[in-house]
Amino acid sequence: MDVNKIQIYLPIEKLPKKWLNIVPFMKTKPGPMLLPNGKPAPPEVAMAVFPQECVMQEVSGEPEIEIPQFVRERYILANRPTPLRRAYGLEKAIGLEDDKIKIYYKREDVSPTGSHKGNTAIAQAYYAKKQGLKGLVTETGAGQWGAALAYGCNIVGIKCKIFQARISYQQKPGRVVLMEGYGAEVTPSPSNETESGKEYYEKDPNHPGSLGIAISEAVEYNLKDPTIRYSLGSVVNFVLLHQTVVGLEAYEQMKIFGDYPDVVIGCVGGGSNFAGLMLPFIKDKLEGKKPNLDCVAIEPAACPSITRGKFTYDYGDTAGRAPVLKMYTLGHKFVPKPIHAGGLRYHGAAPILSYLTKDGFMRSEEYQQIPVMQSGLLFLKSEGILPAPETAHAIHGAIQAALKAKENGEKKVILFNFSGHGYFDYLAYKLLLEGKLENYTLPQEEIEKYLNDPHMPKIQEVA
Amino acid sequence: MDVNKIQIYLPIEKLPKKWLNIVPFMKTKPGPMLLPNGKPAPPEVAMAVFPQECVMQEVSGEPEIEIPQFVRERYILANRPTPLRRAYGLEKAIGLEDDKIKIYYKREDVSPTGSHKGNTAIAQAYYAKKQGLKGLVTETGAGQWGAALAYGCNIVGIKCKIFQARISYQQKPGRVVLMEGYGAEVTPSPSNETESGKEYYEKDPNHPGSLGIAISEAVEYNLKDPTIRYSLGSVVNFVLLHQTVVGLEAYEQMKIFGDYPDVVIGCVGGGSNFAGLMLPFIKDKLEGKKPNLDCVAIEPAACPSITRGKFTYDYGDTAGRAPVLKMYTLGHKFVPKPIHAGGLRYHGAAPILSYLTKDGFMRSEEYQQIPVMQSGLLFLKSEGILPAPETAHAIHGAIQAALKAKENGEKKVILFNFSGHGYFDYLAYKLLLEGKLENYTLPQEEIEKYLNDPHMPKIQEVA
Repeated sequence: MDVNKIQIYLPIEKLPKKWLNIVPFMKTKPGPMLLPNGKPAPPEVAMAVFPQECVMQEVSGEPEIEIPQFVRERYILANRPTPLRRAYGLEKAIGLEDDKIKIYYKREDVSPTGSHKGNTAIAQAYYAKKQGLKGLVTETGAGQWGAALAYGCNIVGIKCKIFQARISYQQKPGRVVLMEGYGAEVTPSPSNETESGKEYYEKDPNHPGSLGIAISEAVEYNLKDPTIRYSLGSVVNFVLLHQTVVGLEAYEQMKIFGDYPDVVIGCVGGGSNFAGLMLPFIKDKLEGKKPNLDCVAIEPAACPSITRGKFTYDYGDTAGRAPVLKMYTLGHKFVPKPIHAGGLRYHGAAPILSYLTKDGFMRSEEYQQIPVMQSGLLFLKSEGILPAPETAHAIHGAIQAALKAKENGEKKVILFNFSGHGYFDYLAYKLLLEGKLENYTLPQEEIEKYLNDPHMPKIQEVA
Repeated sequence: MDVNKIQIYLPIEKLPKKWLNIVPFMKTKPGPMLLPNGKPAPPEVAMAVFPQECVMQEVSGEPEIEIPQFVRERYILANRPTPLRRAYGLEKAIGLEDDKIKIYYKREDVSPTGSHKGNTAIAQAYYAKKQGLKGLVTETGAGQWGAALAYGCNIVGIKCKIFQARISYQQKPGRVVLMEGYGAEVTPSPSNETESGKEYYEKDPNHPGSLGIAISEAVEYNLKDPTIRYSLGSVVNFVLLHQTVVGLEAYEQMKIFGDYPDVVIGCVGGGSNFAGLMLPFIKDKLEGKKPNLDCVAIEPAACPSITRGKFTYDYGDTAGRAPVLKMYTLGHKFVPKPIHAGGLRYHGAAPILSYLTKDGFMRSEEYQQIPVMQSGLLFLKSEGILPAPETAHAIHGAIQAALKAKENGEKKVILFNFSGHGYFDYLAYKLLLEGKLENYTLPQEEIEKYLNDPHMPKIQEVA
């Protein structure tokens, strides 16, 4: 163990000045957001939903987009550049004896809100403020995204309204305190504040909720007030764009370590943390420079959108109020079981990731909750840091990749995104330690049922 | 705001190679630990309690003590050197408009267990393992110390047994998960596992406990098993010694910022985080180089050991099983009210800090829980990080120092120790946000009562 190569910081002047827009490099480019009638959503519709600058970035064909100076400064205040670390402890714990197989992780847990989500929250809040908006409304699962947007809005001094999936609101009161501490208004979802929420709330006021329902509520809430906009923490192109700061830093840090990854791994709910780390590397693959690069999205077996979903047009939200996107989906009416990785409970996956998968540039794997959380606990014991349950999926995937390489006697450099810490998610570990956690695999017939739901948008392929 | 001077990291090669032993520099040096009969505890008694190397360090007259290479490596794995940060956000929030008054803080929250406590835990676990011991037993209040010792023991592969004050065990289940995740055995105190615990447990199985009672239980547990030793997270000289790594780093970082503090501030329970930051600076004062340096310990009004305690001989624990120390104390039978800053609920204060206070080199202030937690919340809003309730005391003290300097039109450089994050302490903030937190000031007659208790040790001043 070389003490100078345990954890690499980048000097502040090496913080990226531009985000990477992967779209121009993609073989098949994601189409525009559609209206339910199949027509592309006109700019004025998109601009009624999102901050203007974000809409421009969503459809940009530029390969790089400048990070505003204000955003860069706030990135620094939020502890960017974040360190990249060699997982010596984990390597030893799983029996990797030499330097033949190496595991690295990018530490997005060091941000003030504990995850990568601030990278886009700060940018979106900045653009909203610049446009003269009064506030942003959003949804959140486990609260990583909600906390980050509350943090971002607090920085620029605009209002923040958050609909949080009820199961997470109940399981993770710490993140509610964080959001409220930053001055945000948090409402458990489904709520009776919107029509989309009432549909579920009136049948069951203790409904666990989902990201899909919470998105419907946030979009509906937004459309009632022209002084605010809706903010998304994942899925769409401009969010993935903002997250590339993660991978751009990691790319430089891997150079300092003198390595290039053979495998890049991240957990996927909507896909933003995985994309953020992976896109700067997959660019090399798209350009033919690294044909063997293996990019692996790790999903929960309770919500395997890419692994077992269908590549088709679907609504981004449960109520069908958000635009239609072509993506891997389990059907927008599907409400995932309340697993502890609340941030992965999304029926779809980012169009960028979906197209990259369809074109064969990346792949996905699904795992059950108990082995994933056991890997999280092993990480705590071997690396000292408590991972968020979402992040435990990436860790579990990295361990599987390492063990497989070991079995095959291969050399392998594995890089994964440590997307966030689990200090607010201790309940999941408590249940694991008490033997009370349960596995769940979404049955195939469930998936078919939701994909064949009559509410699915009927859209002809656009040429 | 100069982005290159927001947060200073030290390069890994600048991690201190030696701890600072302040004792040789003190005007009046703390005497040895005493037995209840007033005689110095002979080495064999101390060595039955603590790891041997720690006992040697406790009485060392050397001005510097080498940090073993293994400990330095584990410090690096635990994110040392930690950053020093200029509090631009907080300065603005309290109306400091120019560079006349500056606030800096040392970020001990970045360690894996979230506080400064790992600095001594790693060292003690290393020395215990080196000595061939099977494990360590300790007490913990809020769990910062327990989590750190569990982390340390896990690194070297020895057993860790922890008695935790029941109120914190209940209020902060996250830290219990962390301790158990590292493989430690955690028992709420007072328990029925020891005679010291039974005294309280049998009267009230839901007794909130205190650090003093938990220490008694841990000491008693230790004396039953010769293969283990007792580990202390604060108070004694060798713990303060290990914590000087904090101040030694901060001393170098302040140079990089081009500043030297006028005021050094920290919260005090036993005193280890404050001492860790402050000792390398107060050395300059003891040597006559910085006669005006103001060193301020911040205490809770519910447990103002230095501010309103008596400088006298007292037991380190509630049951009178631990050695007798000369220190500021509220009486060892005093059980502090269950305030949320569990780590500050200790009846005494480190002898080193007590002698420095008695000799006029430092002073203390006491504050109520509500204004302290409001300062913690202001810090969250202005700096983005959620402080532990203990740390909120230091923040509150730093704010008071800044506002006073502003009122007087003085230039002032304020440095405080951000001893730990509050991700596991969200309940305190939840109660604050809900208006359910209560203030409490320990009445003077309570203090007199415990100081006049017949169980206080009767010891003649040693010449």
